[in-house]
Amino acid sequence: MAERYDAAGLKRFGADLFAAAGMPQDRAATVSEMLVDADLMGHDTHGLNLAPQYLAALEGGEMPKTGDPEVISDRGPSVLWDGGYLSGVWLVRHAMDLAMDRARQYGLCGVSIRRSGHIACLASFLPVATAAGQMLLLLSSDPANAGVAPHGAVEPIYTPNPMGVGIPTDGDPVLIDISASITTMGLTGRAAANGERMPGKWLVDAEGRETDDPAAFGNGGALLPLGGIESGHKGFGLGIMIEAMTSGLGGFGRKDRPEQHGASVLVLLIDPEAFGGLGAFAAETGFFGAACRAARTAEGAPGVRLPGERALQRKRDGEQNGVALFDGIMPRLIEWAGRLGVEAPRAL
Amino acid sequence: MAERYDAAGLKRFGADLFAAAGMPQDRAATVSEMLVDADLMGHDTHGLNLAPQYLAALEGGEMPKTGDPEVISDRGPSVLWDGGYLSGVWLVRHAMDLAMDRARQYGLCGVSIRRSGHIACLASFLPVATAAGQMLLLLSSDPANAGVAPHGAVEPIYTPNPMGVGIPTDGDPVLIDISASITTMGLTGRAAANGERMPGKWLVDAEGRETDDPAAFGNGGALLPLGGIESGHKGFGLGIMIEAMTSGLGGFGRKDRPEQHGASVLVLLIDPEAFGGLGAFAAETGFFGAACRAARTAEGAPGVRLPGERALQRKRDGEQNGVALFDGIMPRLIEWAGRLGVEAPRAL
Repeated sequence: MAERYDAAGLKRFGADLFAAAGMPQDRAATVSEMLVDADLMGHDTHGLNLAPQYLAALEGGEMPKTGDPEVISDRGPSVLWDGGYLSGVWLVRHAMDLAMDRARQYGLCGVSIRRSGHIACLASFLPVATAAGQMLLLLSSDPANAGVAPHGAVEPIYTPNPMGVGIPTDGDPVLIDISASITTMGLTGRAAANGERMPGKWLVDAEGRETDDPAAFGNGGALLPLGGIESGHKGFGLGIMIEAMTSGLGGFGRKDRPEQHGASVLVLLIDPEAFGGLGAFAAETGFFGAACRAARTAEGAPGVRLPGERALQRKRDGEQNGVALFDGIMPRLIEWAGRLGVEAPRAL
Repeated sequence: MAERYDAAGLKRFGADLFAAAGMPQDRAATVSEMLVDADLMGHDTHGLNLAPQYLAALEGGEMPKTGDPEVISDRGPSVLWDGGYLSGVWLVRHAMDLAMDRARQYGLCGVSIRRSGHIACLASFLPVATAAGQMLLLLSSDPANAGVAPHGAVEPIYTPNPMGVGIPTDGDPVLIDISASITTMGLTGRAAANGERMPGKWLVDAEGRETDDPAAFGNGGALLPLGGIESGHKGFGLGIMIEAMTSGLGGFGRKDRPEQHGASVLVLLIDPEAFGGLGAFAAETGFFGAACRAARTAEGAPGVRLPGERALQRKRDGEQNGVALFDGIMPRLIEWAGRLGVEAPRAL
């Protein structure tokens, strides 16, 4: 079992690291908070695990330490920023503050961010919106990267294109974090590095056969869209929609052949208060969630879990009993702490 | 081969039928146009095939012949209507006119419609938006119906929850029409009636096993979310998102236990001109589409087709050479034409 750390202490530690690397204190705190929240929710590949690469990017200049996004367009409920590869985590959180305000006025607000830095864990942003009684759709693609084949092809053309959706209810929020492909590039790369097979036939090989061999990607094959060989036209459709709503709306994408990894992002906030009211919205989503949880399952099968249910349980546990960091994360952070003159927290 | 009819003649015929049944002439023409467009695109279950049931609903009073939706809320880019079970096809088209105007001003506009009548074929609405240079998301659920099990369950709790997405490009638009389940209730019912199996294991039986037996639905089983037994948490997430964006925003849904079949709808228009500009948007979506079409396929496999490509080819062919109606549709329409004193068109 990995050692546990106090969540608030970890957030301060991360903030100190990013600030020591040159980020303004408030931004450093925001980025650290979102990363530790990812760890708290169990998304350990997209939490503090990312801090060393962010610190290196700050040091190397690929991620500017200061500066603001350029406002390309602003019509009130629709905004376009050029992020200039600033911290994507901060950009998304900053865009949410703007969009939540605007959505309160207009009912909805979309902020498109082109040339954003890496945005880390989509799920960690969702509770910020749902706690304010709003629904968040957070879409992302990386025009400098490709891993997924169009339905019917074997060549990678686009990214898994994740979508985070936060939905308030009359109880716990529903927190959806899915992608338009069956698996992610990270999990595929990890399995390939460890010489393991994937848990399912989630890739296509160069001959067009579905396979659980992660090495198919890189050897003429690719990741399959959600739905697989059989129903992949649906996952492909979802992937195209997300490309259009990110790189399309941003006006910057694959056509520009960017070389720097980054994100095209759409932050879309919806305030139910402007439609049928938050009360009616939450009553309906709560009723629906309860109906799903009560749905009959096969004999001996566990009950239905709503998206985000386990992550929220983990988060509550971690906030009370400390966060268990995946092996190898803290040693790398301690190395950076030494270089930057920051004091590292002790395990509980 | 079915007989072919002149498309414009069919649209006039449908309009005459709905008008004779009591709908205002302009609404009758709109509904007929959208239905014949569905036939033109090859969606023959959702074209004129639906006219007899719409005519019966007009006659029986379940679908009011006249009247307007009630405006419950209007903040400019966000609007809620109560549709009062008026023709859903007309309501959606009417909402689109409003939302396209508003999106031109605000960049985006969402019209939520609760208690809408049946909205027929999502795909037929999409080219109306893309021809105006806008992106359309059209989401729908029916709170009086259920066929799909939550991920992990075997009991039907919600509907397939379709999503139509129209995307302008620098050439033909991309027209996506998918649902959050692997198959639809219509196809399942048709296979069950014909004693056929489904093309894949798209259902779950009462014991939690995936099956191609359509009769599983109605015998303790249900339709599976997109992703199936293995990755169904993603399709389930998509289905929940669509429930929230339709019945949730409308403030009317399963919690109200409606008995009349109908639709909870969201019509969301996005004007790329308000973000990075339509030129940059269309160049990006066009570039992406071309890259997908050019993607390498396995030896001997056909090339990649973009969503909507085949439907648009069919539509062009039908507009030039006539529409082939599925067997049995015209005889039922001729019966209604006789009762309503409307002249039926002749086959080409």
